[in-house]
Amino acid sequence: MNSDSRIWQVGVAFGAGLCSGVILAWYWGRSPTKQKTKKEEDKVLFFPDVHTSGDPAGGKDNLSKLLQALASAKDSLDVCIFTFSHRDLADTLINTHQRGVVVRVLTDNEQMHSYGCQVERLRRAGIQVRLDTTSYYMHHKFAIIDHRRLVNGSLNWTAQAIQGNQENLIVTSKDKLVQPFVKQFQLLWEKYDPDKLLR
Amino acid sequence: MNSDSRIWQVGVAFGAGLCSGVILAWYWGRSPTKQKTKKEEDKVLFFPDVHTSGDPAGGKDNLSKLLQALASAKDSLDVCIFTFSHRDLADTLINTHQRGVVVRVLTDNEQMHSYGCQVERLRRAGIQVRLDTTSYYMHHKFAIIDHRRLVNGSLNWTAQAIQGNQENLIVTSKDKLVQPFVKQFQLLWEKYDPDKLLR
Repeated sequence: MNSDSRIWQVGVAFGAGLCSGVILAWYWGRSPTKQKTKKEEDKVLFFPDVHTSGDPAGGKDNLSKLLQALASAKDSLDVCIFTFSHRDLADTLINTHQRGVVVRVLTDNEQMHSYGCQVERLRRAGIQVRLDTTSYYMHHKFAIIDHRRLVNGSLNWTAQAIQGNQENLIVTSKDKLVQPFVKQFQLLWEKYDPDKLLR
Repeated sequence: MNSDSRIWQVGVAFGAGLCSGVILAWYWGRSPTKQKTKKEEDKVLFFPDVHTSGDPAGGKDNLSKLLQALASAKDSLDVCIFTFSHRDLADTLINTHQRGVVVRVLTDNEQMHSYGCQVERLRRAGIQVRLDTTSYYMHHKFAIIDHRRLVNGSLNWTAQAIQGNQENLIVTSKDKLVQPFVKQFQLLWEKYDPDKLLR
Protein backbone atom coordinates (compact mmCIF):
# COMPACT_ATOMS: atom_id res chain seq x y z
CA MET A 1 0.00 0.00 0.00
CA ASN A 2 1.46 3.37 -0.99
CA SER A 3 1.45 6.59 1.03
CA ASP A 4 -1.20 8.36 -1.17
CA SER A 5 -3.74 5.62 -0.65
CA ARG A 6 -3.12 5.67 3.13
CA ILE A 7 -3.69 9.45 3.29
CA TRP A 8 -6.84 9.01 1.23
CA GLN A 9 -8.16 6.28 3.58
CA VAL A 10 -7.42 8.35 6.68
CA GLY A 11 -9.09 11.37 5.04
CA VAL A 12 -12.24 9.41 4.20
CA ALA A 13 -12.37 8.04 7.75
CA PHE A 14 -12.00 11.58 9.17
CA GLY A 15 -14.72 12.89 6.85
CA ALA A 16 -17.07 10.06 7.77
CA GLY A 17 -16.40 10.76 11.45
CA LEU A 18 -17.04 14.48 10.94
CA CYS A 19 -20.40 13.86 9.26
CA SER A 20 -21.44 11.32 11.91
CA GLY A 21 -20.46 13.81 14.63
CA VAL A 22 -22.54 16.62 13.11
CA ILE A 23 -25.57 14.33 12.64
CA LEU A 24 -25.21 12.92 16.18
CA ALA A 25 -24.90 16.37 17.77
CA TRP A 26 -27.84 17.67 15.75
CA TYR A 27 -29.94 14.70 16.88
CA TRP A 28 -28.97 15.14 20.54
CA GLY A 29 -29.57 18.85 20.36
CA ARG A 30 -32.93 18.77 18.61
CA SER A 31 -34.67 15.70 19.90
CA PRO A 32 -35.37 16.65 23.55
CA THR A 33 -36.51 20.17 22.55
CA LYS A 34 -38.97 18.76 20.02
CA GLN A 35 -40.36 16.27 22.51
CA LYS A 36 -40.70 19.00 25.13
CA THR A 37 -42.48 21.34 22.72
CA LYS A 38 -44.87 18.59 21.70
CA LYS A 39 -45.63 17.61 25.27
CA GLU A 40 -46.24 21.04 26.78
CA GLU A 41 -46.80 23.59 24.10
CA ASP A 42 -46.84 27.30 24.88
CA LYS A 43 -50.17 28.86 24.00
CA VAL A 44 -52.36 31.93 24.26
CA LEU A 45 -56.04 31.82 25.26
CA PHE A 46 -58.35 34.72 24.44
CA PHE A 47 -61.67 35.48 26.08
CA PRO A 48 -64.67 35.93 26.03
CA ASP A 49 -65.26 32.23 25.50
CA VAL A 50 -67.02 31.92 22.11
CA HIS A 51 -69.26 29.12 23.41
CA THR A 52 -70.99 31.45 25.84
CA SER A 53 -70.53 34.86 24.19
CA GLY A 54 -70.71 34.23 20.44
CA ASP A 55 -68.04 36.99 20.06
CA PRO A 56 -65.77 36.05 17.12
CA ALA A 57 -62.86 37.81 18.85
CA GLY A 58 -63.12 35.26 21.66
CA GLY A 59 -61.61 31.82 22.09
CA LYS A 60 -63.38 28.49 21.56
CA ASP A 61 -63.87 26.60 24.81
CA ASN A 62 -60.95 28.34 26.47
CA LEU A 63 -62.50 27.98 29.94
CA SER A 64 -62.21 24.18 29.52
CA LYS A 65 -58.54 24.58 28.52
CA LEU A 66 -57.89 26.67 31.64
CA LEU A 67 -59.68 24.15 33.89
CA GLN A 68 -57.71 21.27 32.29
CA ALA A 69 -54.39 23.07 32.81
CA LEU A 70 -55.15 23.62 36.52
CA ALA A 71 -56.47 20.07 37.00
CA SER A 72 -53.23 18.68 35.53
CA ALA A 73 -51.32 19.63 38.73
CA LYS A 74 -49.67 16.60 40.34
CA ASP A 75 -47.77 18.13 43.29
CA SER A 76 -48.58 21.81 43.73
CA LEU A 77 -50.91 24.53 42.50
CA ASP A 78 -50.11 28.13 43.50
CA VAL A 79 -52.82 30.64 42.64
CA CYS A 80 -52.46 34.44 42.86
CA ILE A 81 -55.75 36.05 41.79
CA PHE A 82 -57.19 39.50 42.48
CA THR A 83 -60.91 38.63 42.03
CA PHE A 84 -62.09 35.03 42.40
CA SER A 85 -65.82 34.42 42.05
CA HIS A 86 -66.03 31.71 39.37
CA ARG A 87 -67.61 28.56 40.79
CA ASP A 88 -66.17 26.07 38.24
CA LEU A 89 -62.66 27.34 38.91
CA ALA A 90 -63.20 26.99 42.68
CA ASP A 91 -64.54 23.43 42.13
CA THR A 92 -61.37 22.54 40.21
CA LEU A 93 -59.18 23.87 43.04
CA ILE A 94 -61.17 21.94 45.66
CA ASN A 95 -61.00 18.70 43.63
CA THR A 96 -57.26 19.21 43.10
CA HIS A 97 -56.77 19.79 46.85
CA GLN A 98 -58.79 16.63 47.62
CA ARG A 99 -56.49 14.64 45.28
CA GLY A 100 -53.61 15.50 47.64
CA VAL A 101 -52.06 18.33 45.61
CA VAL A 102 -50.81 21.24 47.77
CA VAL A 103 -53.04 24.17 46.73
CA ARG A 104 -52.22 27.70 47.96
CA VAL A 105 -54.27 30.81 47.16
CA LEU A 106 -53.19 34.45 47.46
CA THR A 107 -55.80 37.17 46.99
CA ASP A 108 -56.77 40.70 48.04
CA ASN A 109 -58.86 41.48 51.12
CA GLU A 110 -60.77 44.20 49.25
CA GLN A 111 -62.19 41.56 46.88
CA MET A 112 -63.34 39.21 49.66
CA HIS A 113 -66.82 40.75 49.76
CA SER A 114 -67.29 41.01 46.00
CA TYR A 115 -70.38 39.22 44.64
CA GLY A 116 -70.03 35.42 44.65
CA CYS A 117 -66.47 35.45 46.05
CA GLN A 118 -65.28 31.82 46.36
CA VAL A 119 -62.44 32.39 48.82
CA GLU A 120 -64.33 31.46 52.02
CA ARG A 121 -65.56 28.32 50.25
CA LEU A 122 -61.94 27.37 49.44
CA ARG A 123 -60.96 27.95 53.09
CA ARG A 124 -63.82 25.77 54.35
CA ALA A 125 -62.60 23.02 52.00
CA GLY A 126 -59.20 23.18 53.76
CA ILE A 127 -57.24 25.11 51.13
CA GLN A 128 -54.59 27.51 52.50
CA VAL A 129 -55.48 31.12 51.70
CA ARG A 130 -53.52 34.32 52.42
CA LEU A 131 -54.67 37.92 51.90
CA ASP A 132 -53.03 41.18 50.94
CA THR A 133 -54.41 43.49 53.62
CA THR A 134 -52.54 46.63 52.49
CA SER A 135 -54.37 49.61 50.98
CA TYR A 136 -52.93 48.72 47.56
CA TYR A 137 -54.16 45.86 45.36
CA MET A 138 -52.65 42.40 45.03
CA HIS A 139 -53.60 42.70 41.35
CA HIS A 140 -51.86 39.61 39.86
CA LYS A 141 -53.85 37.04 37.90
CA PHE A 142 -51.58 34.00 37.64
CA ALA A 143 -51.32 30.33 38.59
CA ILE A 144 -48.30 28.02 38.71
CA ILE A 145 -48.75 24.29 38.11
CA ASP A 146 -46.13 22.00 39.71
CA HIS A 147 -43.62 24.90 39.84
CA ARG A 148 -43.01 24.54 36.11
CA ARG A 149 -46.02 25.74 34.10
CA LEU A 150 -47.42 29.26 34.27
CA VAL A 151 -50.86 30.67 33.42
CA ASN A 152 -50.77 34.49 33.42
CA GLY A 153 -52.66 37.40 31.88
CA SER A 154 -55.45 39.93 32.33
CA LEU A 155 -58.19 37.45 33.32
CA ASN A 156 -59.67 37.59 36.81
CA TRP A 157 -61.48 34.38 37.76
CA THR A 158 -65.00 35.78 37.36
CA ALA A 159 -67.96 34.96 35.09
CA GLN A 160 -67.88 38.48 33.59
CA ALA A 161 -64.20 38.07 32.61
CA ILE A 162 -64.73 34.65 31.03
CA GLN A 163 -68.07 35.26 29.32
CA GLY A 164 -68.02 38.98 28.55
CA ASN A 165 -64.73 40.89 28.69
CA GLN A 166 -61.87 40.98 26.19
CA GLU A 167 -59.15 39.11 28.11
CA ASN A 168 -56.02 37.01 27.60
CA LEU A 169 -54.02 34.23 29.23
CA ILE A 170 -50.54 33.03 28.31
CA VAL A 171 -49.74 29.40 29.18
CA THR A 172 -46.00 28.64 29.14
CA SER A 173 -43.41 26.21 30.47
CA LYS A 174 -40.50 28.45 29.52
CA ASP A 175 -38.25 28.46 32.60
CA LYS A 176 -37.07 32.02 32.04
CA LEU A 177 -40.70 33.17 32.40
CA VAL A 178 -41.98 30.62 34.95
CA GLN A 179 -39.22 30.70 37.57
CA PRO A 180 -39.49 34.44 38.42
CA PHE A 181 -43.19 33.83 39.18
CA VAL A 182 -42.33 30.81 41.39
CA LYS A 183 -39.95 33.04 43.36
CA GLN A 184 -42.42 35.94 43.50
CA PHE A 185 -45.27 33.72 44.72
CA GLN A 186 -43.09 32.47 47.60
CA LEU A 187 -42.03 36.02 48.44
CA LEU A 188 -45.64 37.25 48.56
CA TRP A 189 -46.78 34.10 50.43
CA GLU A 190 -44.30 34.97 53.20
CA LYS A 191 -45.09 38.70 53.05
CA TYR A 192 -48.79 37.96 53.71
CA ASP A 193 -48.16 35.37 56.44
CA PRO A 194 -50.79 36.36 59.09
CA ASP A 195 -48.27 35.69 61.91
CA LYS A 196 -45.92 38.27 60.43
CA LEU A 197 -48.73 40.78 59.80
CA LEU A 198 -49.82 40.61 63.47
CA ARG A 199 -46.36 41.48 64.77
CA MET B 1 2.74 -1.43 7.32
CA ASN B 2 0.52 -4.21 8.72
CA SER B 3 -3.26 -4.45 8.66
CA ASP B 4 -3.66 -3.79 12.43
CA SER B 5 -1.82 -0.48 12.24
CA ARG B 6 -3.94 0.59 9.26
CA ILE B 7 -7.21 -0.18 11.09
CA TRP B 8 -5.87 1.72 14.09
CA GLN B 9 -5.00 4.78 11.94
CA VAL B 10 -8.42 4.77 10.23
CA GLY B 11 -10.10 4.40 13.63
CA VAL B 12 -8.20 7.34 15.11
CA ALA B 13 -9.04 9.47 12.05
CA PHE B 14 -12.74 8.55 12.35
CA GLY B 15 -12.69 9.36 16.08
CA ALA B 16 -11.00 12.69 15.48
CA GLY B 17 -13.57 13.48 12.80
CA LEU B 18 -16.43 12.51 15.12
CA CYS B 19 -15.17 14.79 17.90
CA SER B 20 -14.61 17.69 15.47
CA GLY B 21 -18.11 17.18 14.08
CA VAL B 22 -19.73 17.27 17.52
CA ILE B 23 -17.76 20.39 18.50
CA LEU B 24 -18.52 22.10 15.17
CA ALA B 25 -22.24 21.31 15.34
CA TRP B 26 -22.39 22.42 18.98
CA TYR B 27 -20.73 25.73 18.04
CA TRP B 28 -23.05 26.32 15.06
CA GLY B 29 -26.06 25.35 17.12
CA ARG B 30 -25.25 27.44 20.18
CA SER B 31 -23.77 30.59 18.79
CA PRO B 32 -26.85 32.14 17.05
CA THR B 33 -29.11 31.23 19.99
CA LYS B 34 -26.77 32.92 22.42
CA GLN B 35 -26.57 36.04 20.28
CA LYS B 36 -30.37 36.12 19.99
CA THR B 37 -30.83 35.64 23.75
CA LYS B 38 -28.39 38.43 24.44
CA LYS B 39 -30.09 40.79 22.01
CA GLU B 40 -33.71 40.34 23.06
CA GLU B 41 -33.96 38.42 26.26
CA ASP B 42 -37.32 37.26 27.63
CA LYS B 43 -37.91 38.76 31.06
CA VAL B 44 -40.44 39.32 33.82
CA LEU B 45 -40.95 42.70 35.51
CA PHE B 46 -42.63 42.91 38.92
CA PHE B 47 -44.22 45.97 40.47
CA PRO B 48 -44.49 48.07 42.61
CA ASP B 49 -41.31 49.74 41.46
CA VAL B 50 -38.89 49.55 44.42
CA HIS B 51 -37.54 53.05 43.69
CA THR B 52 -40.87 54.64 44.54
CA SER B 53 -42.46 52.09 46.90
CA GLY B 54 -39.56 50.62 48.89
CA ASP B 55 -41.47 47.27 48.80
CA PRO B 56 -38.89 44.44 48.61
CA ALA B 57 -41.38 42.35 46.61
CA GLY B 58 -41.23 44.96 43.84
CA GLY B 59 -38.85 45.41 40.92
CA LYS B 60 -35.94 47.83 40.71
CA ASP B 61 -36.55 50.58 38.19
CA ASN B 62 -38.99 48.46 36.21
CA LEU B 63 -40.90 51.52 34.99
CA SER B 64 -37.71 52.62 33.15
CA LYS B 65 -37.42 49.15 31.59
CA LEU B 66 -41.03 49.36 30.39
CA LEU B 67 -40.50 52.86 28.97
CA GLN B 68 -37.29 51.71 27.21
CA ALA B 69 -39.03 48.68 25.67
CA LEU B 70 -41.83 50.89 24.27
CA ALA B 71 -39.39 53.57 23.05
CA SER B 72 -37.41 50.90 21.16
CA ALA B 73 -40.21 50.65 18.53
CA LYS B 74 -38.93 51.39 15.01
CA ASP B 75 -42.01 50.80 12.83
CA SER B 76 -45.10 50.15 14.92
CA LEU B 77 -46.41 50.24 18.47
CA ASP B 78 -49.82 48.67 19.18
CA VAL B 79 -51.17 49.32 22.67
CA CYS B 80 -54.24 47.64 24.20
CA ILE B 81 -54.77 48.99 27.73
CA PHE B 82 -57.85 49.05 29.96
CA THR B 83 -56.83 52.04 32.16
CA PHE B 84 -54.29 54.57 30.91
CA SER B 85 -53.56 57.53 33.19
CA HIS B 86 -49.74 57.42 33.58
CA ARG B 87 -48.21 60.62 32.17
CA ASP B 88 -44.68 59.25 31.50
CA LEU B 89 -46.13 56.37 29.49
CA ALA B 90 -48.26 58.81 27.45
CA ASP B 91 -45.16 60.99 26.87
CA THR B 92 -43.28 57.95 25.52
CA LEU B 93 -46.14 57.12 23.12
CA ILE B 94 -46.31 60.73 21.90
CA ASN B 95 -42.52 60.88 21.37
CA THR B 96 -42.61 57.54 19.54
CA HIS B 97 -45.45 58.80 17.30
CA GLN B 98 -43.50 62.00 16.58
CA ARG B 99 -40.49 59.89 15.48
CA GLY B 100 -42.69 58.50 12.69
CA VAL B 101 -43.59 55.16 14.31
CA VAL B 102 -47.23 54.09 13.69
CA VAL B 103 -48.79 54.12 17.19
CA ARG B 104 -52.31 52.70 17.70
CA VAL B 105 -54.16 52.62 21.03
CA LEU B 106 -57.17 50.48 21.97
CA THR B 107 -58.93 51.17 25.28
CA ASP B 108 -62.31 51.01 27.02
CA ASN B 109 -64.84 53.85 26.91
CA GLU B 110 -65.73 53.31 30.59
CA GLN B 111 -62.18 54.28 31.58
CA MET B 112 -62.14 57.50 29.52
CA HIS B 113 -63.34 59.58 32.44
CA SER B 114 -61.12 57.98 35.10
CA TYR B 115 -58.84 60.40 36.98
CA GLY B 116 -55.93 61.65 34.86
CA CYS B 117 -56.89 59.60 31.77
CA GLN B 118 -54.30 60.28 29.02
CA VAL B 119 -56.35 59.10 26.05
CA GLU B 120 -57.65 62.51 24.91
CA ARG B 121 -54.09 63.84 25.16
CA LEU B 122 -52.89 61.03 22.86
CA ARG B 123 -55.67 61.88 20.37
CA ARG B 124 -54.77 65.56 20.39
CA ALA B 125 -51.15 64.56 19.60
CA GLY B 126 -52.44 62.76 16.50
CA ILE B 127 -52.29 59.17 17.74
CA GLN B 128 -55.04 56.83 16.44
CA VAL B 129 -57.28 55.67 19.29
CA ARG B 130 -60.24 53.26 19.19
CA LEU B 131 -62.66 52.43 22.02
CA ASP B 132 -64.58 49.39 23.17
CA THR B 133 -68.06 50.86 23.62
CA THR B 134 -69.77 47.61 24.66
CA SER B 135 -71.10 47.07 28.18
CA TYR B 136 -68.23 44.62 28.83
CA TYR B 137 -64.63 45.63 29.49
CA MET B 138 -61.75 45.66 27.01
CA HIS B 139 -59.63 44.44 29.93
CA HIS B 140 -56.33 43.60 28.16
CA LYS B 141 -53.05 45.19 29.30
CA PHE B 142 -50.58 44.53 26.50
CA ALA B 143 -48.37 46.29 23.94
CA ILE B 144 -46.70 44.94 20.78
CA ILE B 145 -43.45 46.49 19.57
CA ASP B 146 -42.73 46.18 15.82
CA HIS B 147 -45.08 43.15 15.58
CA ARG B 148 -42.41 40.98 17.21
CA ARG B 149 -42.02 41.82 20.90
CA LEU B 150 -44.83 41.56 23.46
CA VAL B 151 -45.33 43.22 26.85
CA ASN B 152 -48.27 41.61 28.70
CA GLY B 153 -49.51 41.13 32.26
CA SER B 154 -51.71 42.50 35.02
CA LEU B 155 -50.41 46.09 34.95
CA ASN B 156 -52.72 48.93 33.92
CA TRP B 157 -50.85 52.07 32.91
CA THR B 158 -51.61 54.02 36.09
CA ALA B 159 -49.50 55.48 38.90
CA GLN B 160 -51.24 53.26 41.50
CA ALA B 161 -50.36 50.11 39.52
CA ILE B 162 -46.72 51.11 39.08
CA GLN B 163 -46.05 52.58 42.52
CA GLY B 164 -48.41 50.67 44.79
CA ASN B 165 -50.01 47.44 43.56
CA GLN B 166 -48.52 43.96 43.25
CA GLU B 167 -48.34 43.58 39.46
CA ASN B 168 -46.44 41.76 36.71
CA LEU B 169 -45.37 42.14 33.09
CA ILE B 170 -43.89 39.49 30.82
CA VAL B 171 -41.65 40.77 28.00
CA THR B 172 -41.09 38.17 25.27
CA SER B 173 -40.09 37.83 21.61
CA LYS B 174 -41.24 34.22 21.40
CA ASP B 175 -43.26 34.02 18.17
CA LYS B 176 -45.64 31.40 19.52
CA LEU B 177 -46.71 33.91 22.19
CA VAL B 178 -46.36 37.18 20.26
CA GLN B 179 -48.13 36.33 16.98
CA PRO B 180 -51.55 35.45 18.52
CA PHE B 181 -51.52 38.93 20.14
CA VAL B 182 -50.62 40.58 16.79
CA LYS B 183 -53.63 38.83 15.22
CA GLN B 184 -55.93 39.63 18.17
CA PHE B 185 -54.97 43.32 18.15
CA GLN B 186 -55.87 43.58 14.44
CA LEU B 187 -59.16 41.75 15.04
CA LEU B 188 -60.13 44.11 17.89
CA TRP B 189 -58.89 47.16 15.95
CA GLU B 190 -61.35 46.28 13.17
CA LYS B 191 -64.12 45.32 15.62
CA TYR B 192 -63.93 48.79 17.22
CA ASP B 193 -63.70 50.72 13.94
CA PRO B 194 -66.10 53.65 14.56
CA ASP B 195 -67.42 53.40 10.97
CA LYS B 196 -68.49 49.82 11.62
CA LEU B 197 -69.96 50.66 15.02
CA LEU B 198 -72.15 53.40 13.49
CA ARG B 199 -73.69 51.05 10.92
